[in-house]
Amino acid sequence: MHRDRIRLPALLDKVVSAEAAAAYIRDGMTVGMSGFTRAGEAKAVPMALAERAKTEPMKITLITGASLGNDLDKQMAEAHLLSRRIPFQSDPALRREINDGEVMFVDQHLSETVEMLRTHQLGPVDVAVIEAVAITEQGGIIPTTSVGNSASFAILAEKVIVEINLSQPLLLEGLHDIYIPTRRPVRHPIPVVAPENRVGLPFIPVDPSKIVAIVVTQKLDSSSTVLPPDQETRDIAGHLTELLKHEVKAGRLTTTLQPLQAGIGTIANAVMHGLIDSPFHNLTMYSEVLQDSTFDLFDAGKLDFASGSSITLSKAKYQAVLPDFARYKPKLVLRPQEISNHPEVIRRLGVIAVNTALEFDLYGNVNSTHVGGTMMMNGIGGSGDFARNAYLSVFVTKSVAKGGAISSVVPMVSHVDHTEHDVDILVTEQGLADLRGLAPRERARLVIANCVHPAYREPLADYVERATARGGHTPHLIEEALGWHARLRETGSMQAG
Amino acid sequence: MHRDRIRLPALLDKVVSAEAAAAYIRDGMTVGMSGFTRAGEAKAVPMALAERAKTEPMKITLITGASLGNDLDKQMAEAHLLSRRIPFQSDPALRREINDGEVMFVDQHLSETVEMLRTHQLGPVDVAVIEAVAITEQGGIIPTTSVGNSASFAILAEKVIVEINLSQPLLLEGLHDIYIPTRRPVRHPIPVVAPENRVGLPFIPVDPSKIVAIVVTQKLDSSSTVLPPDQETRDIAGHLTELLKHEVKAGRLTTTLQPLQAGIGTIANAVMHGLIDSPFHNLTMYSEVLQDSTFDLFDAGKLDFASGSSITLSKAKYQAVLPDFARYKPKLVLRPQEISNHPEVIRRLGVIAVNTALEFDLYGNVNSTHVGGTMMMNGIGGSGDFARNAYLSVFVTKSVAKGGAISSVVPMVSHVDHTEHDVDILVTEQGLADLRGLAPRERARLVIANCVHPAYREPLADYVERATARGGHTPHLIEEALGWHARLRETGSMQAG
Repeated sequence: MHRDRIRLPALLDKVVSAEAAAAYIRDGMTVGMSGFTRAGEAKAVPMALAERAKTEPMKITLITGASLGNDLDKQMAEAHLLSRRIPFQSDPALRREINDGEVMFVDQHLSETVEMLRTHQLGPVDVAVIEAVAITEQGGIIPTTSVGNSASFAILAEKVIVEINLSQPLLLEGLHDIYIPTRRPVRHPIPVVAPENRVGLPFIPVDPSKIVAIVVTQKLDSSSTVLPPDQETRDIAGHLTELLKHEVKAGRLTTTLQPLQAGIGTIANAVMHGLIDSPFHNLTMYSEVLQDSTFDLFDAGKLDFASGSSITLSKAKYQAVLPDFARYKPKLVLRPQEISNHPEVIRRLGVIAVNTALEFDLYGNVNSTHVGGTMMMNGIGGSGDFARNAYLSVFVTKSVAKGGAISSVVPMVSHVDHTEHDVDILVTEQGLADLRGLAPRERARLVIANCVHPAYREPLADYVERATARGGHTPHLIEEALGWHARLRETGSMQAG
Repeated sequence: MHRDRIRLPALLDKVVSAEAAAAYIRDGMTVGMSGFTRAGEAKAVPMALAERAKTEPMKITLITGASLGNDLDKQMAEAHLLSRRIPFQSDPALRREINDGEVMFVDQHLSETVEMLRTHQLGPVDVAVIEAVAITEQGGIIPTTSVGNSASFAILAEKVIVEINLSQPLLLEGLHDIYIPTRRPVRHPIPVVAPENRVGLPFIPVDPSKIVAIVVTQKLDSSSTVLPPDQETRDIAGHLTELLKHEVKAGRLTTTLQPLQAGIGTIANAVMHGLIDSPFHNLTMYSEVLQDSTFDLFDAGKLDFASGSSITLSKAKYQAVLPDFARYKPKLVLRPQEISNHPEVIRRLGVIAVNTALEFDLYGNVNSTHVGGTMMMNGIGGSGDFARNAYLSVFVTKSVAKGGAISSVVPMVSHVDHTEHDVDILVTEQGLADLRGLAPRERARLVIANCVHPAYREPLADYVERATARGGHTPHLIEEALGWHARLRETGSMQAG
């Protein structure tokens, strides 16, 4: 059975139950699991582990590509299975454990985790658990809807468990491009010079003797939680489209733009969606997560090619895309996140990067991760990989949150994930600030004029005025700089009494 | 005359006075000048401009490689010649103008300035002023002790002024490797795969008809202001050497380490100097400024090759190296700062990067630029280019400043140049904290135990304890987080009364 999925006959007798496979994972181990933004995660073994941890005290270090679907981070967190979690998550239950100090969370640039594993700065990986469409005649593992860190996990791990997911169509075969950088001291350039370049193998090459267990599953990926565009996200998209049109007019871009990246989430997805009604054409993406908007852009005839590390769609979009996948496949490639997010390739291609800010400040510093400077939300993800190396680094957010109690534009951000040196463009529904070539004092004027919600414009202008009177390249009243956050904590609102 | 220096005969009649050359520069222009950390700057034309600006009101945007020597930034600042200054400086007079808001300073990663010029996101450059050893038969410009941004300035500028500096020996010819990345949409990989690779031309290729004036000078480069190692910097070097030995023992590095980078300044220079008495050998450098320690390491037989963008030495070292330069030359290359600091190459080579922090915090965020969160010191320079992409990103500082009134380790830095995601190792004379793979709460414990000056250990531990009781992935008392800086401003000391 499943000979179309397990094509190396010697591996057929490795098929076992999830519980039996999970038995290879023991207390104290480091486990690498497939999964990137709710796509292509191993589904049965983590669930079996969570079950086991309810009765048998055990803790593991869990490294993934990014966030897991199917509530797996929740299940494992609630079973107190995780002592350490790397490099990204987005689950409320796990987030609680992280903020309580129960789980040690290492919030890393997504391109860097396997670089650290490969050089033994993290790890070693005891067991890799990888969801696959199939295993080839040579024992190569064909991933499903994400590549993430799966290739390096499988290559570096002592033991490999494969989950063959029958609900993932065989048509996914050929979608992936597995390229692993050569080892130092002499590492060759990564040969990707355009989003559509294929430079590796369509499967993960592993020694089949390392595959100790195969579990057959058929649970679907979770669908994405992205919300449809609303008036404010449409306004944000509109401001950015205007900027891009201006760049074309100024001769800095052509009407095909440069490869696009969009961070995970509702706003970035909406911004990409906004390009449907733009004059741009023959677009390409060099991104990490391919969301609904990627396929909307294909359908609108706007997008020629998309490179990513995972495909994460809403339920409706998934149902529309899947039957027609053969039509999309030639325009798609999924890469290891080390390559989709690699500084070398992002800089070379001149990516236009659009990521979501939690808050930003007058001078262009961006907080992507910490609510109130202390509470972890999801993690930096790939935003830093892209923002630092992009041709144009754009951050988007709505100007206020919690019905106006929180201003997303503050005197000083309470945590910095992207420094003023890395941010080119800030956009809210109010408007856009182009910070390129500007000094801090000039940036502050522009941000207040263009991005701040009217309710916070005067207090921010007042802050800048008083700070500037005191002097400094980056004027601040250091004793008040985080006062808005302190007030929010005290009163539930950043607005003055 | 000077036919050995001006080898294209058609250019011989371009030789004019500095004043006549400076006349090509007019009010409102953008000027690109050679010069990187006090090495190889144009010397006569900027001085003539500063003189002229004393009587004729004029303002220019000045872009360089990095800081200028011979008090030129001071002269131009005091003449109120500069409206905008990019991307780095280190002069007290100019710093004052910047902090007073008289000069708009754009504090950029050193690898990014010409990328923005090339794509017309900055500029255009009206006039380039480049110090040269000579002009070749074809009109190629041979730089002197720095390459910096000179190549792209000359290539992109409408007009080029060359300063032939007779005090710069002809022996410098052949030292430089001028490689300019190809233009998008198809940019090729940068072919540097080892520090010693030469991939470009030994001169800057320009259309000789753009060379509108040549000025003959003979002023020497300023010598560096680096102080010799003291007990504390020796201790810092000792802690780092211990770590590197530990890395070798753990099999993560070999005894030849990986290419080294050291930021400008006394502490980083001292750290490199410390490697003389280490067991490591056959070292290489892939750095930006080559300082005294580079030549000390050559002389000690420890260093095989050094790649940089400039050579900046103390007076004594300069006098020792110059007569013997033919011996060092085969082991040296100077590249454009775009290449010496390029994320692609730094990541590929696996550089060990050592840079100086102004202050760092409990969680690994580093401030390199702003005193008290507001006053600009010098700029981020190349530290971000290296720290983000290095194999090992190390920041060093003494644990206290101003006789103990300032702790370099604080609850929260007052400005972030390097985020917690980019920092691996923190070192003070007290000890070293290895942050790799650690969550914020773990980092805080380690930083307090290993890096903080005893006078500040208890207050920091108290802060963390109270913050942690409140919860959060990165515990902070947001209303107190910058309290040490506020107290310093009020009382002149971070120490509680």
